[in-house]
Amino acid sequence: MNNALEDVSNLRGSNAQAELTERFFRAASDGDVNAIRNTLSFFRSVSIDHRNDHGWTALMLAARNGHKEIVKFLLENGADPSLTTRTGQSVTDIGTFWNQKGVVDTLYKFLKPSSSRLEHVNYFGTNAANRQSYQRKDVQYIESLKTLGSTRYAVFAELELLISTNKSSKPSVLFLSYDQLNAVADKEYDVIYIGKGCLGKNSDDSGIEPDTIAYFAINYRHFPSEEGFPAKEFGGEFSGKGYATRMMMLPVEESGLVAQARSILAWHDRYRFCPTCGSKTKMAESGYKRSCLNSECRSHNGVHNTCFPRIDPVVIVLVVSPDGTKCLLGRQARFPPRMYSCLAGFMEPGESVEDAARREVHEESGVEVGRLEYHSSQPWPFPGQLMIGLVGYAVSEKITVDQEELEDAKWFTRSEVAEALAGGFTKDKGLLVPPKHAIAHQLQKAWVKMSANL
Amino acid sequence: MNNALEDVSNLRGSNAQAELTERFFRAASDGDVNAIRNTLSFFRSVSIDHRNDHGWTALMLAARNGHKEIVKFLLENGADPSLTTRTGQSVTDIGTFWNQKGVVDTLYKFLKPSSSRLEHVNYFGTNAANRQSYQRKDVQYIESLKTLGSTRYAVFAELELLISTNKSSKPSVLFLSYDQLNAVADKEYDVIYIGKGCLGKNSDDSGIEPDTIAYFAINYRHFPSEEGFPAKEFGGEFSGKGYATRMMMLPVEESGLVAQARSILAWHDRYRFCPTCGSKTKMAESGYKRSCLNSECRSHNGVHNTCFPRIDPVVIVLVVSPDGTKCLLGRQARFPPRMYSCLAGFMEPGESVEDAARREVHEESGVEVGRLEYHSSQPWPFPGQLMIGLVGYAVSEKITVDQEELEDAKWFTRSEVAEALAGGFTKDKGLLVPPKHAIAHQLQKAWVKMSANL
Repeated sequence: MNNALEDVSNLRGSNAQAELTERFFRAASDGDVNAIRNTLSFFRSVSIDHRNDHGWTALMLAARNGHKEIVKFLLENGADPSLTTRTGQSVTDIGTFWNQKGVVDTLYKFLKPSSSRLEHVNYFGTNAANRQSYQRKDVQYIESLKTLGSTRYAVFAELELLISTNKSSKPSVLFLSYDQLNAVADKEYDVIYIGKGCLGKNSDDSGIEPDTIAYFAINYRHFPSEEGFPAKEFGGEFSGKGYATRMMMLPVEESGLVAQARSILAWHDRYRFCPTCGSKTKMAESGYKRSCLNSECRSHNGVHNTCFPRIDPVVIVLVVSPDGTKCLLGRQARFPPRMYSCLAGFMEPGESVEDAARREVHEESGVEVGRLEYHSSQPWPFPGQLMIGLVGYAVSEKITVDQEELEDAKWFTRSEVAEALAGGFTKDKGLLVPPKHAIAHQLQKAWVKMSANL
Repeated sequence: MNNALEDVSNLRGSNAQAELTERFFRAASDGDVNAIRNTLSFFRSVSIDHRNDHGWTALMLAARNGHKEIVKFLLENGADPSLTTRTGQSVTDIGTFWNQKGVVDTLYKFLKPSSSRLEHVNYFGTNAANRQSYQRKDVQYIESLKTLGSTRYAVFAELELLISTNKSSKPSVLFLSYDQLNAVADKEYDVIYIGKGCLGKNSDDSGIEPDTIAYFAINYRHFPSEEGFPAKEFGGEFSGKGYATRMMMLPVEESGLVAQARSILAWHDRYRFCPTCGSKTKMAESGYKRSCLNSECRSHNGVHNTCFPRIDPVVIVLVVSPDGTKCLLGRQARFPPRMYSCLAGFMEPGESVEDAARREVHEESGVEVGRLEYHSSQPWPFPGQLMIGLVGYAVSEKITVDQEELEDAKWFTRSEVAEALAGGFTKDKGLLVPPKHAIAHQLQKAWVKMSANL
């Protein structure tokens, strides 16, 4: 093979860049580290993450072909391992699918959990703050954080989130300071501690360290008038009713904080009395506990879940047909027209995750599921579910729809689902699927990826 | 190779059986279907599941060496795929470990979920009854089941289980009939529907079909006197206080029903008032709901988790050291001497399963965890946890024990853990680990298996 450096220096005109790019991709596929290094040194206008006509980067090509030295070199030179192909495969997916163990090991070593997580992270599952759970009982410490100038509050009213209207066209959390909130008339609220992080920093906070801003969340118990809470003056508005709202359109890095805040505040909203004796309760431990005001109540003897925030585990399943070519999706009457999603339901006491998944699928569709694989989880703060996402393998195909739960359930082919995933809501015919913020979407994508011909 | 049939017919005396057995194992290792068939036809006193000196069956040897035809033949001739090696590997584990895809596919096709589940099933996770959730609102139907002669009740008093004392030395659920309970004086109780199944049948019920016995569970709210509830007359006694009791020693097939019954009854015991308005509530839907008696309460508008049984998700993690040779275990002050277990903690709202696991491990031990893998789940009815079991891979090794949560935390080698798993509670020195009914034990076993030299 010729020396790429010399070759390239002879290239002239408009074809030079194209030729260079092609050589770069070829070197990645072939495992030629020198050629990669040489072509890269000529790359000024082209990014290391440049994509070929099929949407693949050099990193992906090297991973596909098992060239771990190239993978290492590209990562060290700034290639982005979080990019995905048009059909959604990351470089780790590609390495895993093609069984390139050396490449996968190299990727795992490089992808430290602090910089990039190795599991699939869903929207609402991005836990940005250090929760400092061990500090929650330290009233003096938490009180001192509340009034700091750098401290930020996520604001809710009747559990609707205050979002920014003036910063950009995309909704984002409008964080307020203690002084801003202190000037507000409406005083009937709950305040909880979130933790320390570095979200929502102002532009003049550049250089700020992680875990230096204290976050709190506040919920006004009654929707305030403009006098009670001047949202517009702050440059924001509340997100609106229903969960298909702008809380689903936030920057993903804010979504975890919102999930944490809204689920705990929703719990305070509904759990103001002791379920054991019916007395009033009061907030404790910076928002992570409620204590019964009746000193005789048996909730004070030992530890009881009546005093702590509630999380409801839900199983959600992408069911694959016995021959592996189709998946089972159902639609509820309240869905938009043509939308189908994965089957899901609340777990019951005394069930394993897998048994709950089999029961729900069978109850709703009549289909029997055998083997199940865990995919990922997603906190869902409306009001406090934990979605546990699984891929299940059916051992029967006949569908009998439970009309109380579902309007319809059907088997869909891989291409129908792939088109729906790619098409979004603008698709004017055929299947629609939930948006990417929903774990159902991610389960469908996982199945399409799993056996797509890379 | 000679024809095994002819060879064998020439064998005489005491060595014949040993020689035959050795050929059988050799044929399984070599993939010789004819030799397997021939030797098998001479097996009268030796089982198809006979183990060699290393504790391996022919099925395991065939799986190890990728002979899927032999695997299929042996399974069709009655070989037991649920047997494990001395170190706990099943035939599926062996095939997976040695990457014998054809064998694993063959096993999956054969292992129908009805006969054998493919995931790990923990104690309390054996859901034996068909819960018939769609029937729970049908009061007339459920009432009619209550009084049937074949209907069986699991009995609790202050959430202690009635167990049999006269059938055998091992504790088991003492199921009672409606007539037996009807004769009892104590009338302050909760009754819930469990579902239909075929557990607890009497010896004269032989030939009984699955899903034909209706199961209920009853909890006497106050521990009854012998006059109020003549336990001894029924041939039983209550299980005693504390969860390390005989409820952990039941036949595994009864454990799921007990888990379901106890967690729901415990919920009724603690949740008798509406958390939203403080009014009294009453049981509904055969025990799967409580309704507020205050008709003005907002719990009547829409669906609210205040009305449904509560499940608390807990993450429990076996953490593997960065070099893969050790695992991290901790001990609480209340543990028996020398016992260490996996780290665990309650999930918080707005967390993914993986983030909760990383947070708990870091809070308790200071160790940072990267990648995590789901292992299995376990319902834990004291009072209603869902244990989510994971294997985590540490990216740091230094331990800083949180003295509020743990008394100690340490790295243990594989051989220390393997010895503790094998040794049980009779071991007089070294590490002790929780019993096999605890998911912690199963996670430790999974790790020891995962990288043991098969």
